[in-house]
Amino acid sequence: MDIIKFSHRQKKITELVKKYAPITSEQLAEKLGVTRAALRPDLAILTMTDVLEAKPKVGYIYSKKPSYSMLYDYIRKINVGDVMSKPVVVDENTMVYDAIVNLFLNDVGTLFIENSGVLIGAVSRKDFLKISIGGTDMRKVPVGIIMTRMPNIVCVEKDDSVYLAAQKIMDHEVDSLPVVEKSKDGSKEILKIIGKVSKTNITRLFVKMGENK
Amino acid sequence: MDIIKFSHRQKKITELVKKYAPITSEQLAEKLGVTRAALRPDLAILTMTDVLEAKPKVGYIYSKKPSYSMLYDYIRKINVGDVMSKPVVVDENTMVYDAIVNLFLNDVGTLFIENSGVLIGAVSRKDFLKISIGGTDMRKVPVGIIMTRMPNIVCVEKDDSVYLAAQKIMDHEVDSLPVVEKSKDGSKEILKIIGKVSKTNITRLFVKMGENK
Repeated sequence: MDIIKFSHRQKKITELVKKYAPITSEQLAEKLGVTRAALRPDLAILTMTDVLEAKPKVGYIYSKKPSYSMLYDYIRKINVGDVMSKPVVVDENTMVYDAIVNLFLNDVGTLFIENSGVLIGAVSRKDFLKISIGGTDMRKVPVGIIMTRMPNIVCVEKDDSVYLAAQKIMDHEVDSLPVVEKSKDGSKEILKIIGKVSKTNITRLFVKMGENK
Repeated sequence: MDIIKFSHRQKKITELVKKYAPITSEQLAEKLGVTRAALRPDLAILTMTDVLEAKPKVGYIYSKKPSYSMLYDYIRKINVGDVMSKPVVVDENTMVYDAIVNLFLNDVGTLFIENSGVLIGAVSRKDFLKISIGGTDMRKVPVGIIMTRMPNIVCVEKDDSVYLAAQKIMDHEVDSLPVVEKSKDGSKEILKIIGKVSKTNITRLFVKMGENK
């Protein structure tokens, strides 16, 4: 997969086809004042890229197919596992005050709460701010009281695309998603947290995509 | 600008050139059992996309140039003005408590502070959280006391690329940047805030880029 920039002549051909379609290569060559042979590479490129469609015994027409999106393809093949970071995990009995200190020490926006290795909740800066204006004594309330509890947490798995993660972040208006590994305990599904993916990871990926290499 | 997927024959040609470079089109045609004329469109495509390089009187060689990055080009042409949102602005005398309420009402992560239409500061969820664990009475402290003050705020302009904005967000570890318009008041530069661009805007753009259209 690579990119191509259309030449001036290829753009000119596209315009002519849009205007006169269907049009044969002989007619195109005549309008451009070149030989049919000279046009062959250009027409090959324009049909391969789905800009033009060659109809046998009719001529070239402008393709109605949506232009193949390079970004679509690239973005969907990057997986959560490629960009995720280490999650910061606390116990549900941690006091809100200590949890906030933990948030600052680790410089993260969301803490995840585990119980015996199982993901049970998440708490964000927003949740902490809400409690802080509520006048509650933050040294006496454990995060277990204010956290968002499973199954109300949107999760992703490491083989999901980053695109799906970004979509979930936007749709559910959260900053960060836990990356989980699913297993079964009898009939019960158990989620273990193995990472997190946030708007920060996506912004970092965006910067990486824009680097000139 | 469009994308191209290489055909089986084009991949085969690339392999042959990697192995036998420099190699002429006659030699390639012979190895593939086709005519030189039949190879012409393929070779045109491979040289246009910088996969191969044609050296006059020598033959084709595998290009050492880094593959032209489609993402690089796309990402750098989107401007801050294309993705920015409306900033939420408060006065520096607003009490911290009221500012936090404002943050929730507008569902944003950062408030900007203006004085007579001039950007003078910014305050984020992180700043608010810091004050909340400090034991300060949030109803008695104005945001002007806790805000990050100009010129210590990283800004962008609406004609800057989103790439630059994302880079600044990552480098300076902030969630959001004010988009400013510069003017002069005598020898003094004045910044007016006209928008903001955040990790949320970049995540939204990422989702848009991955949409199949």
